[in-house]
Parts: sequence; C-alpha cells; structure tokens
Amino acid sequence: MYKYVHGGDVYSHKLTSGGKAFVDFSANINPLGLPLGVKNAVKKAIKQCINYPDPFCLELKEALAKFLKVEEEYLFLGNGASDVLFRLVLTLKPRRALLLAPTFADYERALHTVDCKIGHYKLSAANGFKVEKNILKQITARTDMVVICNPNNPTGQITDKKILEAIIEKCANVKAYLLIDECFMDFVDKNQEYTMCGELEKYSNLIILKAFTKIFAMPGLRLGYCLCADNDLQRELYENGQDWSVSVLAQEAGKAALKEPVYLHESSFVVKEERKYLITQLELLGAEIYGSKANYIFFRLEHPKNLVELLQEQGYLIRSCANYRNLGNDFYRIAVKTRVLNRSLIKAMKEARKHAIFTGTY
Amino acid sequence: MYKYVHGGDVYSHKLTSGGKAFVDFSANINPLGLPLGVKNAVKKAIKQCINYPDPFCLELKEALAKFLKVEEEYLFLGNGASDVLFRLVLTLKPRRALLLAPTFADYERALHTVDCKIGHYKLSAANGFKVEKNILKQITARTDMVVICNPNNPTGQITDKKILEAIIEKCANVKAYLLIDECFMDFVDKNQEYTMCGELEKYSNLIILKAFTKIFAMPGLRLGYCLCADNDLQRELYENGQDWSVSVLAQEAGKAALKEPVYLHESSFVVKEERKYLITQLELLGAEIYGSKANYIFFRLEHPKNLVELLQEQGYLIRSCANYRNLGNDFYRIAVKTRVLNRSLIKAMKEARKHAIFTGTY
Repeated sequence: MYKYVHGGDVYSHKLTSGGKAFVDFSANINPLGLPLGVKNAVKKAIKQCINYPDPFCLELKEALAKFLKVEEEYLFLGNGASDVLFRLVLTLKPRRALLLAPTFADYERALHTVDCKIGHYKLSAANGFKVEKNILKQITARTDMVVICNPNNPTGQITDKKILEAIIEKCANVKAYLLIDECFMDFVDKNQEYTMCGELEKYSNLIILKAFTKIFAMPGLRLGYCLCADNDLQRELYENGQDWSVSVLAQEAGKAALKEPVYLHESSFVVKEERKYLITQLELLGAEIYGSKANYIFFRLEHPKNLVELLQEQGYLIRSCANYRNLGNDFYRIAVKTRVLNRSLIKAMKEARKHAIFTGTY
Repeated sequence: MYKYVHGGDVYSHKLTSGGKAFVDFSANINPLGLPLGVKNAVKKAIKQCINYPDPFCLELKEALAKFLKVEEEYLFLGNGASDVLFRLVLTLKPRRALLLAPTFADYERALHTVDCKIGHYKLSAANGFKVEKNILKQITARTDMVVICNPNNPTGQITDKKILEAIIEKCANVKAYLLIDECFMDFVDKNQEYTMCGELEKYSNLIILKAFTKIFAMPGLRLGYCLCADNDLQRELYENGQDWSVSVLAQEAGKAALKEPVYLHESSFVVKEERKYLITQLELLGAEIYGSKANYIFFRLEHPKNLVELLQEQGYLIRSCANYRNLGNDFYRIAVKTRVLNRSLIKAMKEARKHAIFTGTY
C-alpha cells in the first residue's frame, strides 16, 4: 500500500493510539493559528459554495499581487503548493532534474510522474548542510530543472543570494528552469535579503513556489501558488489541470489573510523569540542544531534512539528525518510553537531521556 | 490567453456587466442548494484547518463505502471529479482513447496532458444522441481507454446497460480501461438500472467517476471520487499527486452530506417535477428536446439566434453548446431549478423572442 512520508499526520496517530490527541510539532505551521479574519471570511463564504469557484481567482490574484508587489500576470494559484508543484512538473515535463539531498520529498514524487531522471546535490553535516558554489558543476546542458528549497526543508538552512544568482544564470545558459520553493521564506528574518522574487522579471526561467499554508496556519484549507514571468508557461499551467482547483473557501480565506498585517508582525516576533528559547533548551539536552532559519529547528540528537516513540507516548509528535535522503537516524525536525507548548515539549524530552536510561534503551 | 469553456462562470459575467448578479442556469447543480447539515459541518470544522487534511480521507471513505454499498478499498477521493480525472489520466498515461462527441470537454483536456491520441464516437441528432452498438467497432487492440459520460453531458442522454456491458467486455478483451463518468447519475430516475457500480468487482478495468458537486450542490467546496477494484491502480493514484488534495472542509462536508437522506429524496422529487414543467414550456416555445435524464435539459432552438445574449441582458445565464464538438450553434443546455426560477427563465425566453423580433435579430 501507499506510504505517507510527511509530518502532520495527526489522523493515523490518533487511530493507532485509541483516539488520543497529540500536540503536533511535526508540521511547521504558524504557532499563532488561523487568523480570526480568515475564520470569519470562511464562515461567511459557505453559502457561496453552491457556485463553482472562480477559475482565474481574479479577486485573490489582484489582492495578492498588491501584497507581494508583483505583476498579477506572474501569479498562478492552486490547491496548496503541492498541487502547483505537480502541475508545474506535468506542464514542463523535465527529463533531467537536480535536487538537494535531503530536501522535501514531493519534488522527487512529482518528477517521477513524468519519468524524470533525478540527480542529487548532497548536503552534508560537515559544512552545516549549506548549498555551495560547487552545485554549479552539476548543472549541465542536459539539465532541464533545478529545485532549491529556500530555506530548505528539513535542514532549516538558507542559500545565499549570490549562489542563487549564479545558479539562475547557469540555468538560463543551459536552458533549464530554476524552481525555488520559498514556502517558508516568510518566517526568515530579513527575508528581503534572500527572496528571489525581485529577479522574476529578469529571468523567465525562474519559478518561485509559495503558500498560504504555513505562514497563515491554514494547511487544511489548501492554498498555494507560484510566481513566474513566462506568459506561455502561465497559459500552459491553466491548460494542464482542472479549472476549479482553488475552492471558493480557499479564495475567500486567502483574501482575508492578506488583510492581517498585525498577525504577521506578531508571528514574526513570536517565532524569533521561541526559536531562540528552543535552541538554547535543545542544546542543553545535547542536541546539535544545524538549521533554524524558518519556523522549525533541524537538529541531531544521538540519545535516546527511540525519541520519537517516547515522545508519542507522552502525546507529542515530532518529525524523525530518517526517511529523508542522505540523513542518518538521529536527525529530527520540530516546529516552533508558543512558549507553553515549547516548554512542555522540552519537559517531555527530558522525561524521554530519563525513561530511556531507566529502561536501558541505549 | 487561456479560455474557460464551461458553464457556471458567474465571475467574469459579473465583471463584464458591472457587478450585476445572474441567475445561473448554465451550471447543473441541485436546485435545493447546500444541505443545512453540510453548512453546519463546514462551519464547525473551520478551526481544524490548522492541521493538514487526512491524506487517506479515512472517515469519509468509511462513510461513503457504507452509503454506496461498495468496498472501502474501491474509493479514491480528490479535489472534485476533475482533479480525480486529471490524476487518473496521469497515472494510466493512455496513448489512444475513444471519447463521445459531444461530451464534457475535460476528458480531452486531461488526455492532452499526456499527449494521448483521441478518437471520437460521433453522436447525432438523427438518433437522439444515443450511444449504440456500433461504438464497439471503434474499440480496437490499440485503444487504451474509453470514456463514457452517463448520462452524457451536455446531451442529457443515457446509455443502456446492455451496451455498456458489451463495451466493458470489449475493453477487457483489448486491455483498455473503461471510464464511466456517473457524476449526474444520482439525478436519473431508477438509476439502479443504469449504474455500473455493481460491475466493479468483476472488471478491474472499469473505473467510475463520481462527485458530491452536483447532487449536494457544493461545487465551491470541491469533492469528487472514483471507484475501481484494481488495487495497483489505487496505490498508483496515491503516488501520482499530492497527499492533501481533499481539504479538511471538503472531508467534513462530505461526511455530513451522506447523512441527508431527506434532502436526497426531496431533490429527486423536485427535479422530476421541474424537468417535466420545463420540457412542456420549452416545447411550447418551439424547442426540440433531445435529452433530459439528469438535472439538465438539452435542446435545440433555432430562434432567436442570440438567445444567450438576450437572456444575459435579463440576468440569466444559460449554456450555449456551440463550443462542444459535433454540435451546431442552436443547441443549448439549461439546469433544472425550482419552480419560481424556472418560470422566470421561461418568461425571459418569451421576452427574448419578442425582443429579437422587434429588433430584427432574425
């Protein structure tokens, strides 16, 4: 049977634990939860669901273009960033692609649907999982697509703009598309120094993937998008999938979310503070922190070996990174949440360590 | 730019008419509107949208299997039937397919995404747009997929079970999949005589497409599914797209919809009565009715030529069928609505005729 590989699966855990609810540190969602304006907008829009959604998301696109300060024509919206990703791949049908390892699993899954051959740029603990200039050697005349997740998931590491500029130039030279996944960019401090949104006009082979999912804490509503200045690609994206991928409720939620500057400001503040708190506490527990640029922390912890299970027993889900390419069993990723929850997770980790020692787990 | 070809586009019409709202007879939605239980379930579930949706739709699948009296393992859910259609095509990658002409435009669009060659079985006014036995001749060793929309959209005509049985046998012999779109089957009187759901166990090459969209009047929520007994295909469907295509709200809406037997009973009664009323009235206006098995009526009307525009001026959208394959400019499709609206549409059609005469449109 098909195996789900991501974090955030509160359903099967609930089933196997006899209905117990978990605190979910395995999905990287804004700790402030759904903005009130979004909740109200969705409630108000329920009665509109007797109509098909607007296939062009005209009102949302207009609002989003203003919010991002980009051209409306650059935007293509979908049923979450994953939907846009699969559609992009189906549209471009790349034959050879270069991915980071480790990175988000769905780039590879999407590329497999069109039988694309995949090469990997291996990130390593030795240099802190950073993308460096030697990646350029792996981009050749045979490359059709390069995917960079920035900040990278799960490593929480960011790629310098200078390197990205070198990559996009090289991609333009070899006629490859560069897909940069900036789904977590909104959580990065001084993100204007890192985002490549300003380069869209210059490079028609640049595609940036983004989502409302993480920053507005609405993964259950499904709303993501990509940005690209290539007119032909935009038209083809419409052609290569259904007309109604963005539900009426997701469109209304999106419009409402863009009217929440205070929520965004507060999120940024909370994530910054709590990230600091968690890093300090994790280090005291003996963890080695490798990346924390977004709203999650990527770390290595050798003991206890069965950390995930011991935390589950106490009602906490964290993300083991063992099923990512090029990573060992002792790498983990946790979301940054609010202080009460973060403190309780740290407490549970201390308990887990004690328990592991008492039961002789290691 | 990309052109939207379906009914139900209340958005661009609203824009071009300066914000005027339309009564939409161009989309075939249950005239009773959203069931109250669905509205309440969606409202209640908004706060759950901070979690990713269940990738396997476990609770909904269990409820739906009981409702349809089929195995849970036969069900695959998606972001509307169109989402499931594009995913099926990506998964099966047929090289040659046979479609009806005219039929719903998205089969062809979906098949184009995998560069499938398409043949057409031409339906004609002469025999009432019926699928007949001679379709078997067009299913050959080179055919990978046959798509039958039943009842067919836009013709409102139904294909006899005996013919479908002959088609599925022939498809099994030549190793082709038969996709039957039964999205409108719930509106058909005595539909147990027509549905092929009972044949799923016998034929692993049979796939049936269905949706909550039409029967529960929830096109804006996006919820559709397919049924198929082929285990390998089921696994591949999961692999060939994102994990979170069905939103939290759509899953909750679906579960609530299945608890609405009174709504379904009433819908069936209203559609039957109103279909009769509209047919009588359309015939009095000189229309020739070709099909009305579902909740829409397919007819030919020669005068006035600019019927669609004249009705738009009065605030009504109907579906011109001129952009379907193999149909002339004088074919139309209208949804069956409640008596007040149906009566007002007929009145507007009478006005349109008068106006056309006065302005010398024909």
